[in-house]
Amino acid sequence: MNFINKLSAAWTANNSLLCVGLDPDLAKLPAELRDLPDGITTFCTRIIDATADLACAFKPQIAYFGALGAEKQLEDICRYVRENYPHIPLILDAKRGDIGATATQYAREAFERYGADAVTVNPYMGEDSLDPYLAWKDRGVIILCRTSNPGGSDLQFLDTDGVPLYQRVARLVAEKWNKNGQCALVVGATFPEELAQVRAIVGDMPLLVPGIGAQGGDIAATVGAGQTANGMGMMISSSRAIIYATPQAGEDYADAARRVAIETRDAINQHRAV
Amino acid sequence: MNFINKLSAAWTANNSLLCVGLDPDLAKLPAELRDLPDGITTFCTRIIDATADLACAFKPQIAYFGALGAEKQLEDICRYVRENYPHIPLILDAKRGDIGATATQYAREAFERYGADAVTVNPYMGEDSLDPYLAWKDRGVIILCRTSNPGGSDLQFLDTDGVPLYQRVARLVAEKWNKNGQCALVVGATFPEELAQVRAIVGDMPLLVPGIGAQGGDIAATVGAGQTANGMGMMISSSRAIIYATPQAGEDYADAARRVAIETRDAINQHRAV
Repeated sequence: MNFINKLSAAWTANNSLLCVGLDPDLAKLPAELRDLPDGITTFCTRIIDATADLACAFKPQIAYFGALGAEKQLEDICRYVRENYPHIPLILDAKRGDIGATATQYAREAFERYGADAVTVNPYMGEDSLDPYLAWKDRGVIILCRTSNPGGSDLQFLDTDGVPLYQRVARLVAEKWNKNGQCALVVGATFPEELAQVRAIVGDMPLLVPGIGAQGGDIAATVGAGQTANGMGMMISSSRAIIYATPQAGEDYADAARRVAIETRDAINQHRAV
Repeated sequence: MNFINKLSAAWTANNSLLCVGLDPDLAKLPAELRDLPDGITTFCTRIIDATADLACAFKPQIAYFGALGAEKQLEDICRYVRENYPHIPLILDAKRGDIGATATQYAREAFERYGADAVTVNPYMGEDSLDPYLAWKDRGVIILCRTSNPGGSDLQFLDTDGVPLYQRVARLVAEKWNKNGQCALVVGATFPEELAQVRAIVGDMPLLVPGIGAQGGDIAATVGAGQTANGMGMMISSSRAIIYATPQAGEDYADAARRVAIETRDAINQHRAV
C-alpha cells in the first residue's frame, strides 16, 4: 500500500488527523531514562504504544537523533513502528534538500535505512533535487511550502509575479511534481488564511500541519482552513505538547501523552466536516 | 580562530581555492575497502593526506554517511582532519533547514558532534531558522543561494519584485543575516553570470562554488566571475572528479586524487588575479 492510501486508511481507522511528532530532547526526558543507552527508544516506544490508536501518523524528527549520535535508536524506533503498527504511516522529518546524486543518498537513508513511508523535503533546489525521492513511487514526499515559524515569511511571502512564493511552490507541486500522486505539503497552522489558500490550490492533497500546541496555532481555524470537503486531508502535527505533557496524579509520561493526544484529537474532530 | 579567518589563512598557506569534497559512495570505493568496517574512513583519510597541502577546505557530504549508517566513520574522519590538519577548515555539507528548536539540534550535530568549522544550510525557512547556527559565532554558516543543478532555477530564478530570488537571498545575507561576519554563500559554477551578480552584491563574502568537474562548470569563467579583487573569496569544490580519479600506471586512488587536485588547483590559480 502506498503512503497516500495508508494515510487515508489511518485517518479513517483511528478517526484522527493527529500526527504525533517524536522530538526526543535528552534534557526533557524523564530522569530515569536519560542515562540509559536505549533511553530514547524506551521513551519513544512507550509514547508510540500510548498513542497508536489516536494517531494518523508518527513523525520522528531526525535532528534530535543526529545531535545525540542516536541513529541506532532511531532505527530501532522506526522498526518498532513498522512491526507493531504497520497500518500507521511513519514520516521521517528531515527536510532534506540537495542535488540529485546526493538526494539519492538521502532517499536511501529515509526509505531504506529507516524504512519511512514518507520524508519531508525542501523545495529550494527545485524539481531534479526531488526526483530521487519521487522515484520511490510507493513513498510519500512531503514538501515544505509555508512553514510555521516567523522567519518563514522572509522568503515564502516574497511576491513572485503577483503570487507569494509559497503559493508558487504549491502550484509547482500540484501541477508538475506530483506526477505519481505521492506528494504532500508542509503548511504551518500559524497562518490559517494561507492554509486555506494552499488548500484551494492543491485540491485533496494531504497537508502536514505543524504549529498547534507549543507554537500557538489555533485548532478551530486550522481545521476550518485546511480540511478537505470530507473532513480529511491533514496531518496535524503535535510534538512537544504531547511527548512532554506534564503528568497529573497517578500518570506517568506515557499516560500524560495519551491524555493530551486524546484531547488534541478530539479538539480537532470537533471542527471536522464529518 | 573563527571560520572566515581560518579560511583566509588556508587560501594563503596552500595558495589554493580548491575545496576537496568527500562523497564516499560505497559502490565506487576500491574493492579492497568496500567490505571493511572502517573502509570509508581509510578511503577518506588517505584522500585527505594526499590533498591537505592543496586544499583550502575539506567538505564531507553527510548524506553519503547517512545512507550507509556510517556516522561513526564520519566522526572519525572529522576528528582526523581536526587533529592532523587543524589549519584546514572542515565544512559539513548538510544543507539543513528547520525551525529554531530543531535547528538548534542540527547546529549541535554539525559543530559539537562533528566539530565542523562551518555547515551548509538552506534559507527557505528564513532568518530564525538560521539563528541557532549563527549563535556559534566562531563557526561559518554557508547559505544556499544559487545552486548548480538544472532545477535550481525552478525557485531561485523566480522574479521577486524585479530581482531573482537567489539575488534576494544574497541581499538578505549581506545586509541582515551576516551580522556576525560569519556567513558564506553557495553559488554554483554552472552559471558564471549569476556568480558575478552575487559577487557584486556580497562584497568579499566567501562563496562555496560546486559544479566544476563532474557537473561541467568552466574553471576560467568561474574564477573570473567569482573571485575577489585580490584573487581570493572562493571555495571551489570538487568531489567526484578528485576522489574517484582514475589511477594511471603506478598510482593508487590517493595518488590519482593528488594528481587531479594539483591539476585543478593549478587550473584555478591560472585565472586568479594574484
